[in-house]
Amino acid sequence: MTAPAKIWTAGLIVIGDEILSGRTHDKNIAQVASWLQVQGIRLAEVRVVPDVEARIVDAVNALREAYDYLFTTGGIGPTHDDITVDAVAAALGVPVVIHPEARAILERYYETRGGLNEGRLRMARVPEGAELIPNRMSGAPGIRRGNLFLMAGVPHITAGMLDALTGQLEGGAPLLSETLGGWIPESEVADILRRTEAAFDTCQIGSYPFFRDGRVGANFVIRSVDADDLAACAAELARALAEAGYPTTPGGI
Amino acid sequence: MTAPAKIWTAGLIVIGDEILSGRTHDKNIAQVASWLQVQGIRLAEVRVVPDVEARIVDAVNALREAYDYLFTTGGIGPTHDDITVDAVAAALGVPVVIHPEARAILERYYETRGGLNEGRLRMARVPEGAELIPNRMSGAPGIRRGNLFLMAGVPHITAGMLDALTGQLEGGAPLLSETLGGWIPESEVADILRRTEAAFDTCQIGSYPFFRDGRVGANFVIRSVDADDLAACAAELARALAEAGYPTTPGGI
Repeated sequence: MTAPAKIWTAGLIVIGDEILSGRTHDKNIAQVASWLQVQGIRLAEVRVVPDVEARIVDAVNALREAYDYLFTTGGIGPTHDDITVDAVAAALGVPVVIHPEARAILERYYETRGGLNEGRLRMARVPEGAELIPNRMSGAPGIRRGNLFLMAGVPHITAGMLDALTGQLEGGAPLLSETLGGWIPESEVADILRRTEAAFDTCQIGSYPFFRDGRVGANFVIRSVDADDLAACAAELARALAEAGYPTTPGGI
Repeated sequence: MTAPAKIWTAGLIVIGDEILSGRTHDKNIAQVASWLQVQGIRLAEVRVVPDVEARIVDAVNALREAYDYLFTTGGIGPTHDDITVDAVAAALGVPVVIHPEARAILERYYETRGGLNEGRLRMARVPEGAELIPNRMSGAPGIRRGNLFLMAGVPHITAGMLDALTGQLEGGAPLLSETLGGWIPESEVADILRRTEAAFDTCQIGSYPFFRDGRVGANFVIRSVDADDLAACAAELARALAEAGYPTTPGGI
């Protein structure tokens, strides 16, 4: 087990009236927490705040100073109440600008989906100086500026953005991985994946399905900062899949 | 629809390393948010903090001044890392004392469960000046002190404490209720209850099963601060239950 030289910390701000009203049950706290755990970064605090600019600004300023990284979820969509970009720009004291690459991504994405209108173009707005976080689920990218990461509120889109950031952040320990591949329809083994991941706190299992030579298959990537846990988790996953009739190949196929 | 004269607000502090590590998926934010919505009180902010006294003290002091009510979940159990009572007492500048009624409750509860040991007695500790919040799920009570409410972290125990507080807080509008009763096993209609509640943001449906004259039945209590929504929700629930073959009696049985 690697002893980290420094404990890297992160804060998370969950933005949205719908969480505070109870209408939407937040899934991003658990998702971001688990993901950070695997990156070797400790989630130190979460705040849930409403869609009110002054409240977002206060939370951003409090947490970006206190921790190494700050993540936000929510409020980066196309409607008038999506004000995260404006609030973060205000907190940083920089203007909001249209990111040309984000605009190009949105133009391509909406070319066959009714075109880029004013609302959709809002999703190309970033605080000046920002880079993009790829989003393979829908057109609109996430936004990175320094130690700040602005992500979507919809959990499966957030998941895609976290996936794009996996292994990209300086953390307490390097991220290790092992891959198991097989001609396995992932939907038949979702339970095994979930149970195995749940049994290993420090490990995360990604499932990457493919269709090749007329057959479906998947590569399962186990990630951890702990080499022993990684090996144990990979061995257990291979065992559980084999027991259920799904043999796998180390290294992937 | 009643226009509230004042918007009553609440803060919530979720206490626990297990939430921040991603090991436990929080359910209390959504639960407390929905419950407050029904009481006519607006959840204005949530913070998730670790089991570290200074961090709990800071959050308690920030939120108890900012909002009319402050709720906490977690950290009131029997183990050494349950430090919510100590942190809240420190924040308020009062000593921690054994509450005699809490002690008596625990003595009764553990009489047939191995007796009251040192760990269990920890659950009788309260900040001086506190009252108890009844807990019908397990022995240990929750704690109320002024506008502070300290509740359990285990969601179904938290639910019992919220239930005990229903209608007890001064809120934006009086809480109204309607009851429908029937000789209905509640487990057969859980889906209908959930769907109907989900369709009415401002309404909450409580299910109170009973066994009487050798038969199972349940009373469903619909609560809301909005009379129109309450009537619509009750009508829809009666309709949906009847459609599924479960007639109900207004006023309960």
